[in-house]
Amino acid sequence: MRIVVDAHGGDHAPLEIIKGCCMAADELKDVTILLVGRKNELTQLMSDHGLPANRFEIVDAPDVLTMEDEPTSVLKEKQYSSMAVAFKLLKEDKADAFVSAGNSGAVLVGATLLVKRIRGIKRAALAAVMPSLNGPYMMLDCGANVECKPEYLDQFATMGSIYMKSCLNIENPRVGMLNNGTEECKGLDLQQQAYKLLKENNNINFIGNIEGRDMPLGGADVVVADGFSGNIALKVSEGWGKMFATTLKEMLTKNLKTKLGALLIMDQINDFRKKMDYKEYGGAPLLGISKPVVKAHGSSDAKAFKNAIRQANIFAQSGMIQTIEAALNNN
Amino acid sequence: MRIVVDAHGGDHAPLEIIKGCCMAADELKDVTILLVGRKNELTQLMSDHGLPANRFEIVDAPDVLTMEDEPTSVLKEKQYSSMAVAFKLLKEDKADAFVSAGNSGAVLVGATLLVKRIRGIKRAALAAVMPSLNGPYMMLDCGANVECKPEYLDQFATMGSIYMKSCLNIENPRVGMLNNGTEECKGLDLQQQAYKLLKENNNINFIGNIEGRDMPLGGADVVVADGFSGNIALKVSEGWGKMFATTLKEMLTKNLKTKLGALLIMDQINDFRKKMDYKEYGGAPLLGISKPVVKAHGSSDAKAFKNAIRQANIFAQSGMIQTIEAALNNN
Repeated sequence: MRIVVDAHGGDHAPLEIIKGCCMAADELKDVTILLVGRKNELTQLMSDHGLPANRFEIVDAPDVLTMEDEPTSVLKEKQYSSMAVAFKLLKEDKADAFVSAGNSGAVLVGATLLVKRIRGIKRAALAAVMPSLNGPYMMLDCGANVECKPEYLDQFATMGSIYMKSCLNIENPRVGMLNNGTEECKGLDLQQQAYKLLKENNNINFIGNIEGRDMPLGGADVVVADGFSGNIALKVSEGWGKMFATTLKEMLTKNLKTKLGALLIMDQINDFRKKMDYKEYGGAPLLGISKPVVKAHGSSDAKAFKNAIRQANIFAQSGMIQTIEAALNNN
Repeated sequence: MRIVVDAHGGDHAPLEIIKGCCMAADELKDVTILLVGRKNELTQLMSDHGLPANRFEIVDAPDVLTMEDEPTSVLKEKQYSSMAVAFKLLKEDKADAFVSAGNSGAVLVGATLLVKRIRGIKRAALAAVMPSLNGPYMMLDCGANVECKPEYLDQFATMGSIYMKSCLNIENPRVGMLNNGTEECKGLDLQQQAYKLLKENNNINFIGNIEGRDMPLGGADVVVADGFSGNIALKVSEGWGKMFATTLKEMLTKNLKTKLGALLIMDQINDFRKKMDYKEYGGAPLLGISKPVVKAHGSSDAKAFKNAIRQANIFAQSGMIQTIEAALNNN
């Protein structure tokens, strides 16, 4: 697999991105990484940090698309940015998958307008893999489409279900729709109409509405939401994760007694941290695009970025885009 | 203060409700509790459990409104239920505040149509007090109004701000609007239009949009939301709280070593539990009604219910309903 990486996207770019690529190159022997960015700058940085230069190919791109740039600039003003050049390599079949931790809006625009959606897919969805008591689940859309129609949600359900089956080996994933109650009549008109479509969708195992409180407890393998409420559910979850980590640290380092206590439960805490760490799950695949696109978290460090590359590799290997195409014809 | 209590509302009614009333009667010396329900059944239950009969007055109501009943049944079919009779006592000035852990929809209907809204208030909002790293904050609406208009959100902001000032002694509460980003242009049409109103609202200290991740970290004292996304944010928070509690317990009771560790950090864990325990915060006031109405959590035990009564008492003592009326004329 050839994975193309945007070297200049993310809060800690390009150094953590490069380090993540090095880690991925070590771990994933069958993967070829194409790092796109300002070649001289990247080469110098690697040399300064003693990072081996022979692990991956660097493709030169003179410009950088920042968080402040308009998403559509990826098409025109910033068409020579690392992100835009990376998208072009994907489009031209010079790469099999794409990873960026940069401007989410630009990733969405670039993927949709340069690489294009799968034929028949109405909207692409940002699909986050999130931790729960029962292991990872997927929520989509997490923010690509603030306004949704019922048929978008129906397609999100099909795509999320296929992802969890193909890439996370979950047999017959339970698909729930995020709603303000479990009864069929709950929600706005969007949810009520979408419910009817989901019930009839032959490609999924629809278990009905799911309330926010059941998500972290593992109530569904795929949670379908409009991009507005999905984004809110995602970010509330992130906030709680951060609050809990902060509180746990404060608790355990308070005094000598608690530090001793911390030593005794350290194994369990590390297990828990690993289970709850979004970095373990890589990035958010953008489902509905005709080639594998993964949006890594903006705050990704090397490890998180390495996992996003790993995820892109699994995504590309799974052949799930063809499965989605087949499913669209089946419904 | 005379507080009227619905004895038959909630998952653990009536026993935990009675026990909560006993605890409240002990703690709040200036409060008179009127317990409404099936008098014979309640008297018998108190006798069976050795609960003193002289702590509060029992008002007989022959019927019970269940979770399965239509919310509007509080007006007609279930007009002799404990909830409906309790609302009538509030309406007729025979009580100063109302508490129920029963059917939320029926509490909303009863409060709105029997007790009535404050003049000028377009919709009442269910306002949850929630834990954060910086102490409690209020989110409203948490589900009373699935569909909202911008002017509702504007009024919610005023009411939430007055509540936090009057009842929780927070000076100049920071009001944020729940949105999918901090920029003014973010959100659906509802949030974009509401933003303009909130910016011009003289009664509040509007700090702009707030993302879900900043809520548990204490980013605002009042979070304004439509009832759909507010409900989702509330329930995701509840789910995470529950997941942490479960995980922490598993971690600490795993083996002898971790049990010893747990002993050493027990004080900190108890502090944290207390801080995060929704039971400490009582119930959710229904803001916008012309008299104090508090909806206790359906799963309330005695302690949670006692705290809901304490909250109703503070609400009634604060005189904040008059402050809301004055604020409406001021804006």
